[in-house]
Amino acid sequence: MRLLPLLLALSVSQGLYAAERETRIPDAALSVASTLREKAVADDTGWKTVESLTTEVGPRLAGSEADARAVAWAQAKFKALGFDKVWTEAVTFPKWERRSETAAILGAHTQPLTVTALGGSPGGKLQAEVVRFADLAALEAAPEGSLAGKIAFVDYQMQSARDGSDYRNGGAIRSKGPSAAIRKGAIGFLMRSAGTDHHRVAHTGITRFDEGLTPVPSAALAIPDANQLARLLALGPVRVSVALDCGWNGEATSYNVIGEITGRSKPQEVVLIGGHLDSWDLGTGAIDDGAGVAITMAAGHLIGQLKQAPKRTIRVVAFANEEQGLYGGKAYAAKHAADAARHQLGAESDFGAGRIYAFNTGAPEHAKAATRQIAEALAPLGIEYTPDKGSAGPDIGPIAEKGATWAWLAQDGSDYFDLHHNADDTLDKIDPKALAQNVAAYAVFAYLAAEADGDFGSVVKATEPTPAAAK
Amino acid sequence: MRLLPLLLALSVSQGLYAAERETRIPDAALSVASTLREKAVADDTGWKTVESLTTEVGPRLAGSEADARAVAWAQAKFKALGFDKVWTEAVTFPKWERRSETAAILGAHTQPLTVTALGGSPGGKLQAEVVRFADLAALEAAPEGSLAGKIAFVDYQMQSARDGSDYRNGGAIRSKGPSAAIRKGAIGFLMRSAGTDHHRVAHTGITRFDEGLTPVPSAALAIPDANQLARLLALGPVRVSVALDCGWNGEATSYNVIGEITGRSKPQEVVLIGGHLDSWDLGTGAIDDGAGVAITMAAGHLIGQLKQAPKRTIRVVAFANEEQGLYGGKAYAAKHAADAARHQLGAESDFGAGRIYAFNTGAPEHAKAATRQIAEALAPLGIEYTPDKGSAGPDIGPIAEKGATWAWLAQDGSDYFDLHHNADDTLDKIDPKALAQNVAAYAVFAYLAAEADGDFGSVVKATEPTPAAAK
Repeated sequence: MRLLPLLLALSVSQGLYAAERETRIPDAALSVASTLREKAVADDTGWKTVESLTTEVGPRLAGSEADARAVAWAQAKFKALGFDKVWTEAVTFPKWERRSETAAILGAHTQPLTVTALGGSPGGKLQAEVVRFADLAALEAAPEGSLAGKIAFVDYQMQSARDGSDYRNGGAIRSKGPSAAIRKGAIGFLMRSAGTDHHRVAHTGITRFDEGLTPVPSAALAIPDANQLARLLALGPVRVSVALDCGWNGEATSYNVIGEITGRSKPQEVVLIGGHLDSWDLGTGAIDDGAGVAITMAAGHLIGQLKQAPKRTIRVVAFANEEQGLYGGKAYAAKHAADAARHQLGAESDFGAGRIYAFNTGAPEHAKAATRQIAEALAPLGIEYTPDKGSAGPDIGPIAEKGATWAWLAQDGSDYFDLHHNADDTLDKIDPKALAQNVAAYAVFAYLAAEADGDFGSVVKATEPTPAAAK
Repeated sequence: MRLLPLLLALSVSQGLYAAERETRIPDAALSVASTLREKAVADDTGWKTVESLTTEVGPRLAGSEADARAVAWAQAKFKALGFDKVWTEAVTFPKWERRSETAAILGAHTQPLTVTALGGSPGGKLQAEVVRFADLAALEAAPEGSLAGKIAFVDYQMQSARDGSDYRNGGAIRSKGPSAAIRKGAIGFLMRSAGTDHHRVAHTGITRFDEGLTPVPSAALAIPDANQLARLLALGPVRVSVALDCGWNGEATSYNVIGEITGRSKPQEVVLIGGHLDSWDLGTGAIDDGAGVAITMAAGHLIGQLKQAPKRTIRVVAFANEEQGLYGGKAYAAKHAADAARHQLGAESDFGAGRIYAFNTGAPEHAKAATRQIAEALAPLGIEYTPDKGSAGPDIGPIAEKGATWAWLAQDGSDYFDLHHNADDTLDKIDPKALAQNVAAYAVFAYLAAEADGDFGSVVKATEPTPAAAK
């Protein structure tokens, strides 16, 4: 008699509904995860994998000969690491090439400048006066035609942050600055590298030119060189020469390389983890994103070494051509859109090799408890549960748009923009212990997501197909 | 009566002789030095001077067009800083030029390597197998002829130290390695840069080839690239391509640029301080040795601003072409050998821009007390008196051999070999406060040496003239 009002109250609340379908992770799986975590932090598979990729393949610009070697490497490595299924999925995109690049101060203060073409820039040789702008807004506010015959120089210094938040400014200058400069009449574009280091290594990265504009040579100066140019401009007018030999050259086909640890009871459902296989050409793609490929390959490998496979399949994807426009992530989403609901959480590691400090998922209310359970299993790794934060990683974004639920393992990126897209992105910048912490986090997260009773809210959304060539 | 035995005892000892001619610094001068020191640590003349040189001239390889601009800059700067006399003394030397340099791994792991020609290397294009040696001794121990048709690679990692002591190994590999490799039959020489950084900037520096050997292309790999090559060699044989376009190209004449603050009572006696004006071409020569030029110019300037000039003349020399064989220092010594005894202490600042931590002179016993007085005046700057340490700086060495007494102001060089002879030697690496501490130390030291009653033991030694072209 006394229970009746209570049951009635519950039955009309979300609470009862949630309790009915609430996603939970069994205690036995939590126990296995604890052992897996301890094993992973002491395991060097991640290190050996990123060492192998960055040493044996080295730089692997999308569409290059080295990119093809990277695809072969990834297939072989998945097999060597014991994945059950290994396959590739083709990804086609315009091919951009860098051949040479030089720049110099002209006149009374003649001296070379360290420069690198932005990805997507056309080649060309210029000699012109430079006009400096403190940031993108200042360039956009310049009078129409005021840069006729001149080179725009956007001199914004990115600040370091754990979450890399100032990349919103640095990245925007790179992507929007060239078009803004062209609209003001500029014949070339220079920017202070979107970076936080103090070395003679310029930071590249993709740019794009708005429809209807004629692209102009566009490049980034190393940070000491931007300092130098700014000091010289403070003394009077400065002319520079810029000579870029680079540009688009037809189409190329590369591949998403996929390895799976087959689930024992729900093999059609997958937990998706990965990184991107391509890199810029200047470094060896260690922190961007050899680390992400290695972290997720090693996590999958360690799960595959368990006595019993998890219920769901662990799918590790080494995505093709992330750098020039998420081509791999978009191709994956286009191919797997109908299976979006079968993706029970997806996460990409693509922010270097720093320690993971925060975790969250985009799962709805009925899976919050399971998200919290995963977070508790990650806590011994120094990872905090941050229920209001996070988003899909770059190559997960497209399938998340199709309805797959994302997970977010936030890496400490304090030094990420010291190394991002420049020649200094090499193996020695990776701390093996921090890398192993990442492997442990991905292994624990993926294993528990694959063991959960109930779902993480993935659905199939009706969306327009992503155009294959969009950036 | 009771004094007589004591006087007799003293008269036969060094003590009485020393007391008779003991060099001392008057109290009034010590008081002025204290004020000078406080003014100097708050003064930015040193900073503005190195900023001007590295920005307006930039890299200034001996004999280059920029070297000539540096000579004009130094003359103008001495005048602007109020020096009484400014002049130049010609220095002639063989001219070496760098035009381009590339290297790459060949074969299945094709990728570029960051490389820089050693100064003095001939140009050439090679494709050959690499043989690795852990250090110079290992190369020297290789069997005769064992490197026929191959490239020697000496893979020694320099360690950082406050006094830069491991440069004895790194520098020896650079200077002796190429000849050792040729004697074993090698057609090329590669070395891990003599440096302590972790960046994609290779360290150049002069090398030389022993008489009777045919020089071979010789270059240094950036440290991450040396790591990479070593890892690849651990996997199996490695072929590389090396293409250097560089070499000797006739003779050039540059200039020691000299500025003086004329002494008020002993103008023919000089306290000699300076740095070298030339730099390698890869960076802008900030820590090597724009800092030394700026420190000593600023010190002279601050002494010149005193109400009363010191007794002796302060002579500041911006030496020509130190990097390729101490040409400026040797030319100075050859020209001023007969006046060696009039040099009452000489010190060069040529170990970066780190704080000075120790002081000593090469003065004999009768000037130890004055040396200690100078040290006491330097102590508030955090400088220790180290009576058993020190030596003449590179460009002071030749005049010291002629009989001039050296002084030694030891700089903290913990990060010096991060930046030494590479592209990262730029203004932003200098800490303005540490630079001002250096200026203060040089100002105090030079002023007090110029005010001392008595001498510092300089003499004219009968030595063979230094051959002008020797390195």
